[in-house]
Amino acid sequence: MQHKSIKSDYYWMAKAIQLAKKGLYTTSPNPRVGCVIVNGNNQCIGEGFHIQAGTPHAEVHALKQASKAGRNTLSNATAYVTLEPCSHYGRTPPCAEALIKANIGKVVIAMTDPNPNVSGNGIRKLQEAGIEVVSGIMAAEAAAINPGFIKRMLTGKPFVRVKLGISLDGKIALENGVSQWITGPEARRDVQRYRASSCCVLTGSGTVIADDPSLLVRANEAQFSHYPLERIRQPTRVVVDSKEVVNSDYQCLKDGNTTLIATINPHPDTAARHYLTITPKQGRVDLEALMQSLGDKQYNEVWVEAGPGLAGALLDAGLVDEFICYQAPMLLGNKGMSMVNLPSYTSIEQSISLTLIENRQVGNDIKLVYRPDTDSSRD
Amino acid sequence: MQHKSIKSDYYWMAKAIQLAKKGLYTTSPNPRVGCVIVNGNNQCIGEGFHIQAGTPHAEVHALKQASKAGRNTLSNATAYVTLEPCSHYGRTPPCAEALIKANIGKVVIAMTDPNPNVSGNGIRKLQEAGIEVVSGIMAAEAAAINPGFIKRMLTGKPFVRVKLGISLDGKIALENGVSQWITGPEARRDVQRYRASSCCVLTGSGTVIADDPSLLVRANEAQFSHYPLERIRQPTRVVVDSKEVVNSDYQCLKDGNTTLIATINPHPDTAARHYLTITPKQGRVDLEALMQSLGDKQYNEVWVEAGPGLAGALLDAGLVDEFICYQAPMLLGNKGMSMVNLPSYTSIEQSISLTLIENRQVGNDIKLVYRPDTDSSRD
Repeated sequence: MQHKSIKSDYYWMAKAIQLAKKGLYTTSPNPRVGCVIVNGNNQCIGEGFHIQAGTPHAEVHALKQASKAGRNTLSNATAYVTLEPCSHYGRTPPCAEALIKANIGKVVIAMTDPNPNVSGNGIRKLQEAGIEVVSGIMAAEAAAINPGFIKRMLTGKPFVRVKLGISLDGKIALENGVSQWITGPEARRDVQRYRASSCCVLTGSGTVIADDPSLLVRANEAQFSHYPLERIRQPTRVVVDSKEVVNSDYQCLKDGNTTLIATINPHPDTAARHYLTITPKQGRVDLEALMQSLGDKQYNEVWVEAGPGLAGALLDAGLVDEFICYQAPMLLGNKGMSMVNLPSYTSIEQSISLTLIENRQVGNDIKLVYRPDTDSSRD
Repeated sequence: MQHKSIKSDYYWMAKAIQLAKKGLYTTSPNPRVGCVIVNGNNQCIGEGFHIQAGTPHAEVHALKQASKAGRNTLSNATAYVTLEPCSHYGRTPPCAEALIKANIGKVVIAMTDPNPNVSGNGIRKLQEAGIEVVSGIMAAEAAAINPGFIKRMLTGKPFVRVKLGISLDGKIALENGVSQWITGPEARRDVQRYRASSCCVLTGSGTVIADDPSLLVRANEAQFSHYPLERIRQPTRVVVDSKEVVNSDYQCLKDGNTTLIATINPHPDTAARHYLTITPKQGRVDLEALMQSLGDKQYNEVWVEAGPGLAGALLDAGLVDEFICYQAPMLLGNKGMSMVNLPSYTSIEQSISLTLIENRQVGNDIKLVYRPDTDSSRD
């Protein structure tokens, strides 16, 4: 009765990954995880994904459906999970234990837990219970769903994406500061989804004062094809305000959603203003310490919408994991505002070198995703 | 015995267009033209392309091969020509007449002659001789081979391509002027081919003084897959030198190849220096008058490799047909040299808007080809 093949392992894992992505906007600080349970006839008898921290994990949802098929069927069934099942008691009981209790026959795992302290424990627990475990099926694809969770588990810091809407000549605004409608509605929709999938949106005091942006997710603009909760989970705004120039007249401090103000001097929190005191570096918020602090707050993914100063400083400090540009087909000219402020380089080798990982048309604009190259020569 | 169909008309015209492209680097001021002659059994019995002005046209080459099949075969044969056969005596006899004399059965033409004074004359001559003529098969594809010839026939001015090698942030050099190796070898190879297919390479005095470029075609770098002549035909260099600051110490005035210096004051030509006297506009070479003058010299395609001043001025004057950027994956920072100097705009509507017509990876760089939108609001 065993019709399973290597090919079907990939088929079912791809399905589990698709399920995991349904948690894109809601699982953090937890990872996005999907699970599919397939019986001995290669038929799906249960599926699930993790929705939100504190609620059941993907495996528990899938087992609940699959258990209707009975313990005998489960003993011939395979569970496909995008991430190694947890082995510890957290807010919910360990999933490895749930799979053992359910009498599952086999477990196929895309990737092991990235947390070095627990990695492999779930697999060992399953194996000790006599369950066959296969690991490493579509590991790269599964890892791509959780760049922030994985980076935080490995380094304690979040995954940082810096976004800019630019003209072909690398300008973000005219000389007079006018910057509205450089990029089109499709690019703005894409931005909404990044905001929604991020734990926080980071900006600088300059942007708050110049544009007074809300930086919240506008659900109508995002046009989510799937959203697992009734209400949109909004990202926390984080404003770097070394000089403490942002008063409470701005939208992000008045709209009732959470905003953290990163300063170098400690301040008591008020109802409207929450502070994040960061070690200074040359009299300003040390950006590396800021990222450590955001990691400590269990932020997986940080989305940066900032001006040339903060964007350039993050790039220069080597703190950017992805640099995303929506490039509009227009020229604003040399007098416009340049997209990133960087030190004055004397040779091309000193400049910031990138690797293009995505280039696609988004409406009339092109979306370019780069990974900054790690370059020791600039340190 | 007639196996021909609409489908085979496209098949043979596509072949004729491929042949025409073999003249890409050498036909100007003539257009690139290809011809295929197919017998009644749908077999190719002759093919040819125009190589160089003053030498036989594509039809003559093809007829020479096809005539071996005899006049009877030709009476059932079809000639596919990418451009309406000429009807006038120029440096070579008219091709319409050659086709009539050869007793050809039918002529399929991609596009009519763009010159409004002779357009349709070749077709009429063929029809008057009792030859069936079909026109408009793959007209757009055929037109794309000869943008410069067509534009010059219609307007008297050449087709202008402005090329820039830029960083992601729209810079062409560091603050100190260093600009070497922004783009990679694949982009530079592409540039060589554009130089080779252009009648002239236009630059400004600033670029000559700063970089002392040769602006000639380096055949080893171009790596031509096909070149119909033994020696590379070099484009004429045209240097805009309103302030007459370019002395004879520069490569382009010493290497023996032709350079025209566009000035506002007349000067007698010398062996090394040829002048183009252009009406001034605000004390400088009027770029529109310059283009008229280059059209008068029968230049079809102008390739511009210039600095931010001349590139911006051409864009601002609406004189650019294609804007080609090789964008390297690097950031040079706000202190770098911006790619185009433009007036200080006060609203986004005043800026230069473009339409993207090509986006492709060229080595590590991306090649972006834009067509500037005609925008009356900026006039």
